[in-house]
Amino acid sequence: MSMKCSPIPGGTVTSPRGFVAGASYAGIKVKGDDPLDLGILYSEVPCAAAGVFTTNRVKAAPVLLCQERLSKGRAQAVVVNSGCANACTGNRGLADSAMVADLVARKLGMPPEEVLVASTGVIGVPLPIERIRTGIEGIALSQDGGHRLARAIMTTDTFPKEIAVRTEFGGKEITIGGIAKGAGMIYPNMATLLAFLTTDAALETDLARTALRKAVDESFNMIAVDGDTSTNDTVLLLANGLAGNQRLQAGSAEAKVFQETLGEVCSYLAKCIARDGEGATKLLEVKVEGALTLKEARLAARTIASSSLVKAALHGGDPNWGRIIAALGRSGAEIDLSKVDLYLMDLCLFRRGCPMPFDKDEASGTLSGAEVHIGVCLNLGGESAIAWGCDLSEEYVTINSAYVT
Amino acid sequence: MSMKCSPIPGGTVTSPRGFVAGASYAGIKVKGDDPLDLGILYSEVPCAAAGVFTTNRVKAAPVLLCQERLSKGRAQAVVVNSGCANACTGNRGLADSAMVADLVARKLGMPPEEVLVASTGVIGVPLPIERIRTGIEGIALSQDGGHRLARAIMTTDTFPKEIAVRTEFGGKEITIGGIAKGAGMIYPNMATLLAFLTTDAALETDLARTALRKAVDESFNMIAVDGDTSTNDTVLLLANGLAGNQRLQAGSAEAKVFQETLGEVCSYLAKCIARDGEGATKLLEVKVEGALTLKEARLAARTIASSSLVKAALHGGDPNWGRIIAALGRSGAEIDLSKVDLYLMDLCLFRRGCPMPFDKDEASGTLSGAEVHIGVCLNLGGESAIAWGCDLSEEYVTINSAYVT
Repeated sequence: MSMKCSPIPGGTVTSPRGFVAGASYAGIKVKGDDPLDLGILYSEVPCAAAGVFTTNRVKAAPVLLCQERLSKGRAQAVVVNSGCANACTGNRGLADSAMVADLVARKLGMPPEEVLVASTGVIGVPLPIERIRTGIEGIALSQDGGHRLARAIMTTDTFPKEIAVRTEFGGKEITIGGIAKGAGMIYPNMATLLAFLTTDAALETDLARTALRKAVDESFNMIAVDGDTSTNDTVLLLANGLAGNQRLQAGSAEAKVFQETLGEVCSYLAKCIARDGEGATKLLEVKVEGALTLKEARLAARTIASSSLVKAALHGGDPNWGRIIAALGRSGAEIDLSKVDLYLMDLCLFRRGCPMPFDKDEASGTLSGAEVHIGVCLNLGGESAIAWGCDLSEEYVTINSAYVT
Repeated sequence: MSMKCSPIPGGTVTSPRGFVAGASYAGIKVKGDDPLDLGILYSEVPCAAAGVFTTNRVKAAPVLLCQERLSKGRAQAVVVNSGCANACTGNRGLADSAMVADLVARKLGMPPEEVLVASTGVIGVPLPIERIRTGIEGIALSQDGGHRLARAIMTTDTFPKEIAVRTEFGGKEITIGGIAKGAGMIYPNMATLLAFLTTDAALETDLARTALRKAVDESFNMIAVDGDTSTNDTVLLLANGLAGNQRLQAGSAEAKVFQETLGEVCSYLAKCIARDGEGATKLLEVKVEGALTLKEARLAARTIASSSLVKAALHGGDPNWGRIIAALGRSGAEIDLSKVDLYLMDLCLFRRGCPMPFDKDEASGTLSGAEVHIGVCLNLGGESAIAWGCDLSEEYVTINSAYVT
């Protein structure tokens, strides 16, 4: 079965049938230009739902609430705020997240246990519940509300990240949409901060869970901005079935198409997050081939993409391949240096363990664009992986040295 | 047995009896003010010798040479250069390192297999052997040559790191000296780049090995500047026995004093390295107490000390304790958030899982000094560990985005 999948111009999380969204400014984050900090995503009908969450042992209240509610595999709405993480807020934080869900359930006339909650922002500060109550009242849901929702979840992001893609199986048109936010605290082990994925495809909760896990492993878990993992990282998938397709069965050709399409949506959003890493000026793509195992290919690609020294060298347009080899060497992946090939863009700088002569100005020139590709072939086995990151700039430090104060 | 240990004013690696050193400028690194890039450390008599090396799978030629030569547990001289790492240089690199050792052996009239070699600098460039030959000829060894040697191993270090400490056992005065270089590519798993330790104590090679390993684990392996591990990290200990003490026996009271004194020397040098991290303006000390295991205490302390977000917050004087808790949570150490206490200097910001009210200006004020102390008590067990790091400044990026070019 060949793949039929095309991006929808201006597509977003409300592009799939039956999804609406809206956002307002509740005064949770500091007011900037055109501010939004609170939003709702809603499906006209209940959805099969799955989530992937932070691996941090310190989990924010909304993460704990989602994990509990998703044990049933169903949801119909998501409420999200930026500006306050509601993390390290104890029992009060849990009660606050449940209260926010209640307010949304009341507004939409639905059971509170089918409302999921997400938060991002400063740790250790309680949610301003009264402002959120007023903010929720002010939210108008609409079919193009996904764009406002994408803006409402931004913190230090410089642009909203959204996409929708259409595909077809069994004569039914299927849409998958998504939005995400990233910027800081982005790392392989649950990398996203927040991503919300929607589809009108009909599928079982189990399939939603396995498909989401696989898509996340190949996308959000393969990006690195800094080494930090948030307390709030949350990826949610809601599938409402309004496309009218026959319910997808695991292992079917249709499920495979769904998996690939979901993977494309997630990879697009993951790359947007890497490109928009705090202070980033370049997208870094690292492809590792010829690894003995998939795990090692991923480990090697992520370690290179997250090396401070590699990232700083790229920022300066410095073809310092020794730092790439050093990162590869400490990644934990099995390597035999005498078999390693290394490419920077199309230039081979290192072949079978030996430095290759190259023109430094030419190499530096290839690093001047908005995307830098590093290719490593270990020549040991057949597994490969791609990781995305960004350069490390002075601006990253400036952003992160004055966040709270 | 109470400890008698005092630092020697102006002490260095040649303070213990029988050690001499010298350095010259061979033209390996770019000429700065008052440049030195090649040095020799020599003991009048052969030493019991031990080494700890990088865990990177890509090991530079001098590391491989040292590892082989130290299998016999003896050495009498070390030759070291900065400006060129002699890493990723294949068989030629191995031959070059052996050649450098040969040149030194000929100069000093000793067997080449008792000469150890260390290099630091740019990866992937061969050693300029002819310049090194001339440089070695020009080195004059002297009893206060340790100071020049400490300068010769510097790369982006801003000050030489050296110390000597005197203690006594069995009526014999014992001296331990050391020098180190650090700056970039500093991380817990072999953190040092280079450190050379000398003592006139008499001890068996086995004791030298175990004592060095323990001292390194508690000092150089507890510092973090960035997440990168060098291909060249090397810590060497040479013990020449000229103090005339009865040979130290493992498990004896004297061996314990030796271990503690060696630990002090290593901790001092490790802190110097952290304080002089590339672009650093502050020393960060993280103490984790109440952990279930020593491994977890170390893991937690190192993860906090190496978090880019924590480091950037400290640089800006921002008491953003949420980032400390988030780093703790992802460290892998067992924690129960409802039992965690967190201190920034003397201020308790978080007690038993709950944020404590604090004055932001006061908290920010405590971060304005040259040393910042973070204290975490997990209240789970009896193990503790201290890690050292530094803040992350714009200057780190500036330094690392223009190293080769």
